[in-house]
Amino acid sequence: MPRYKLTIEYDGARYVGWQRQKNGYSVQEAIETALKGFIGEDVTIFGAGRTDAGVHAAGQVAHVDFAKDWDTETVRDAMNAFLRQETVSILSVERVPDGFDARFSARKRHYLYRIFNRRPPPALLAGQVWWVWKPLDIEAMNESAQSLIGTHDFTTFRSTHCQAKNPVRTLDRLVVFKGPGHEVHIEATAQSFLHNQIRSLAGSLKLIGENRWTTADLVAALESRDRKRCGPVAPPDGLSLMQVDYAS
Amino acid sequence: MPRYKLTIEYDGARYVGWQRQKNGYSVQEAIETALKGFIGEDVTIFGAGRTDAGVHAAGQVAHVDFAKDWDTETVRDAMNAFLRQETVSILSVERVPDGFDARFSARKRHYLYRIFNRRPPPALLAGQVWWVWKPLDIEAMNESAQSLIGTHDFTTFRSTHCQAKNPVRTLDRLVVFKGPGHEVHIEATAQSFLHNQIRSLAGSLKLIGENRWTTADLVAALESRDRKRCGPVAPPDGLSLMQVDYAS
Repeated sequence: MPRYKLTIEYDGARYVGWQRQKNGYSVQEAIETALKGFIGEDVTIFGAGRTDAGVHAAGQVAHVDFAKDWDTETVRDAMNAFLRQETVSILSVERVPDGFDARFSARKRHYLYRIFNRRPPPALLAGQVWWVWKPLDIEAMNESAQSLIGTHDFTTFRSTHCQAKNPVRTLDRLVVFKGPGHEVHIEATAQSFLHNQIRSLAGSLKLIGENRWTTADLVAALESRDRKRCGPVAPPDGLSLMQVDYAS
Repeated sequence: MPRYKLTIEYDGARYVGWQRQKNGYSVQEAIETALKGFIGEDVTIFGAGRTDAGVHAAGQVAHVDFAKDWDTETVRDAMNAFLRQETVSILSVERVPDGFDARFSARKRHYLYRIFNRRPPPALLAGQVWWVWKPLDIEAMNESAQSLIGTHDFTTFRSTHCQAKNPVRTLDRLVVFKGPGHEVHIEATAQSFLHNQIRSLAGSLKLIGENRWTTADLVAALESRDRKRCGPVAPPDGLSLMQVDYAS
């Protein structure tokens, strides 16, 4: 069965998350339903990142096997036609070797967390940013963030529901900088992340930006390996899976 | 009665437009309801631009009279608290002279029309852009647009429902350029616009960008003063009222 790689953009506001679930409509179900409509087969797609409800993607990746060969542009356009009522768009469809696995072949995952830092709430960006009205010290946030780079036990910064056996992860990049307009952007890169890791980090970095935490507080929280020491977890709205890298 | 100037941002997707109407919920009604909740008075606000259903604003302006003096920051924050369930945000509240009229004192209105020019449809910007998947010739669009600058009878480019007695308007600025990502931006400035004028111009400029119209076709359409010669009117989603200028 030929294998295909899908690159996907979605606004996660109206879905229960990427993963198919019994309690509501997921991005995965939306895409599988579109594929069923188009090729008439019940197929299962496998995603690189299990984004939570309300989390978005500009470059989610999934793989899927079809019974026969298809022209990739035809598949992309037909899927988008079937997805017309959804906030999901198929950016590209590529033929890949059978060994390609969207989740397990991923070398790096790149996420963006968007904070909207203005006293009046966001109307145009509602649902796409975290509204923090107190002015943030962006430089302090970025400086503190560097203390989290490298290989650590991130127990403090993962959900108590996280199913990963090992809480150790290697954070390659975590930068905080001024985005467009009133936005503050946090970019994070790692081979893989724990459940709620970026939202936990964003929530704690906000405390730094408000001068309520110092770098020492952040490091102490990390080293405690105690979930109760995490800052308030940031809402899903601001988070987007931007890109997944594979060996070329 | 002291007069106040409100500067307002909104996502117009869920409203019937700026203006209070019998057939649905308007931005004006949302704001007047918030004011009623806060100051307990039935007040009427007067806006600078009567944006249509689905049209957005990053800098709509309105004026309102209160029975007594209020601290402007208190009014702004309280209004935003009452608007929490809406996609409307009050950016600023300022005390202005009694003679200030949001509509009639306006010197210039600045609008932005956003086209999303990519084969796969927009998921993250759904409702905020016009999806045009054929590649557009942006330079040609901008060049042709310059032939519309100045004082003209814009009958071709206004809605048949336009209530203005005079179809002559002076277009100060109309530029087309590459925006961020896959966006093509059209910026338009005039003291005032006719009903559907910018959406009519955007729809006709798209025909230029697709090489279906030449500058001569655009000028002939303008000079015909015939609404039937207009290109297909662009959807409201891409349009935003960005700024209104007043004599300082």
